[in-house]
Amino acid sequence: MRLGCGDDAALWQPRPGYQTVLTSDWFLEGSHFLREKHPADSVGWKCLARAVSDIAAMGGIPRCFLLNLAIPASHTGRWLDEFLGGLRRAAKFLRCSMAGGDTTRNHQILINVTVVGEVKQGKAVLRSGARPGDLLFVSGNLGEAELGLQEFRRRGKHAPKAMSPALRKHLYPKPQIQLGQWLAENQFASAMMDLSDGLSTDLGRLCEASGVGAVVEECAVPLARGMAGQEAIGCGLHGGDDYELLFTVHPKQAQRLPRQYQGLRLTPIGEITRGRQILLRIDDASVVPLKPSGWDPFRK
Amino acid sequence: MRLGCGDDAALWQPRPGYQTVLTSDWFLEGSHFLREKHPADSVGWKCLARAVSDIAAMGGIPRCFLLNLAIPASHTGRWLDEFLGGLRRAAKFLRCSMAGGDTTRNHQILINVTVVGEVKQGKAVLRSGARPGDLLFVSGNLGEAELGLQEFRRRGKHAPKAMSPALRKHLYPKPQIQLGQWLAENQFASAMMDLSDGLSTDLGRLCEASGVGAVVEECAVPLARGMAGQEAIGCGLHGGDDYELLFTVHPKQAQRLPRQYQGLRLTPIGEITRGRQILLRIDDASVVPLKPSGWDPFRK
Repeated sequence: MRLGCGDDAALWQPRPGYQTVLTSDWFLEGSHFLREKHPADSVGWKCLARAVSDIAAMGGIPRCFLLNLAIPASHTGRWLDEFLGGLRRAAKFLRCSMAGGDTTRNHQILINVTVVGEVKQGKAVLRSGARPGDLLFVSGNLGEAELGLQEFRRRGKHAPKAMSPALRKHLYPKPQIQLGQWLAENQFASAMMDLSDGLSTDLGRLCEASGVGAVVEECAVPLARGMAGQEAIGCGLHGGDDYELLFTVHPKQAQRLPRQYQGLRLTPIGEITRGRQILLRIDDASVVPLKPSGWDPFRK
Repeated sequence: MRLGCGDDAALWQPRPGYQTVLTSDWFLEGSHFLREKHPADSVGWKCLARAVSDIAAMGGIPRCFLLNLAIPASHTGRWLDEFLGGLRRAAKFLRCSMAGGDTTRNHQILINVTVVGEVKQGKAVLRSGARPGDLLFVSGNLGEAELGLQEFRRRGKHAPKAMSPALRKHLYPKPQIQLGQWLAENQFASAMMDLSDGLSTDLGRLCEASGVGAVVEECAVPLARGMAGQEAIGCGLHGGDDYELLFTVHPKQAQRLPRQYQGLRLTPIGEITRGRQILLRIDDASVVPLKPSGWDPFRK
């Protein structure tokens, strides 16, 4: 069974003046979603949205994707229909069309999505461009998807139709494509990545790629309305699945960077430093190491 | 853990005058290989080679790939080293470099490889171009990899260093990249695909895509030296994993098509017909339906 173009491979016409951006992402039953609990429709939406987020993080625009799906024979009926429904809605919303893939049978549900995107020649933003003195920014609010996951665990499959914003962010995340593209084309960001595994884990990766360190101001981390207290800050620092953008900006550029983009907050949360440590400033008197405590499949 | 470029996504420079060819392929423990029996080195080689074969089947040249790997923590040492060794050898041989991917942890070993290739603008050969009257060709010998699989099952992991050609074809297949490119650029092939799931299964797919039927001459199916008898013919008609090319050629073009390409046999094995049936001519008196009896994950 082949999906999409139905040939051995998909054909794609690159646009002159653009580079191709390529990314693949696992979405596995048991690790990334629960077969019996997560709606198949959300699984379909999220497997594409999270892969597209990696394209957004380079400043690229998604164009097409390959769906690799392995399912048990028992799931080729209703589950598959609902899964494909969610996937199609995401594909339409993200303007990213299915170009092919590979489908096979397996006892555990396995999904891998490859997204192909484009970025204007020379405009891609890498993780490795952060320099000491750059300001550290995040888009939107952090920790909201983690809060949504906690709500989902409490409520289970039969969530009310009127979903809370947090639950919606957990089930149907929206990658920041326009923002990423705008930051890249206007050369605001010196380095950028998406926040999929939690700020404390992902910031470490950006700093490692750039050969720098960072200090994060705890009180500056933007939390969703109604989130407060130590637990909420923990969600903001370590919670995964937000798919917001983490980016660094040269101090001069930061002066002309608006603090909102299409209604989305852009918040400075700290600074890039020469030392290789990742630190958290709790108040004027205390600075502690910010240990990577987000998602890491080999540490769980 | 990220492999390759270490950024959110890989950047790739398309070549002017070329289209991009994209394919993804599963390679799963239990379905496509056995953890305890197949050498990790062969798993690494074969997962890339079989995905590249889909690029060859379009007349394309492979350029880079994304490796998606999920392994148990127990396999991050020696198994992973040997796997990456086989993968690197294949990447060098196939001139296809690793550009990125995604690695996570899972109890079952999961591999998905996406290959990006190029084909000259307008020269890609699809499955859908076969027309009644076209001659049906295959490259090389059929059924050899199936014979190798049988030999492997008898001998197990401790195969002798001097592998038989059949065993080598099972463990370290070589996709027909040069042949595919040559057939495409010289416009010999009206339709083309690779033989991964067995002639009887794959021919059905090519005919369906083209809206035609076919008659295969049983006595014309090329078998490896020493293969004879009904069982050998069964391997040739239904055995998978050969990664040879199946292609159709207009009768006029067939006259100028040499019967060898760089020492590789190109054998006419039948003809495309107007009717939608796939038939096998056993002798002058008997023609029987050729039922798809190769690999199909949803029928096993």
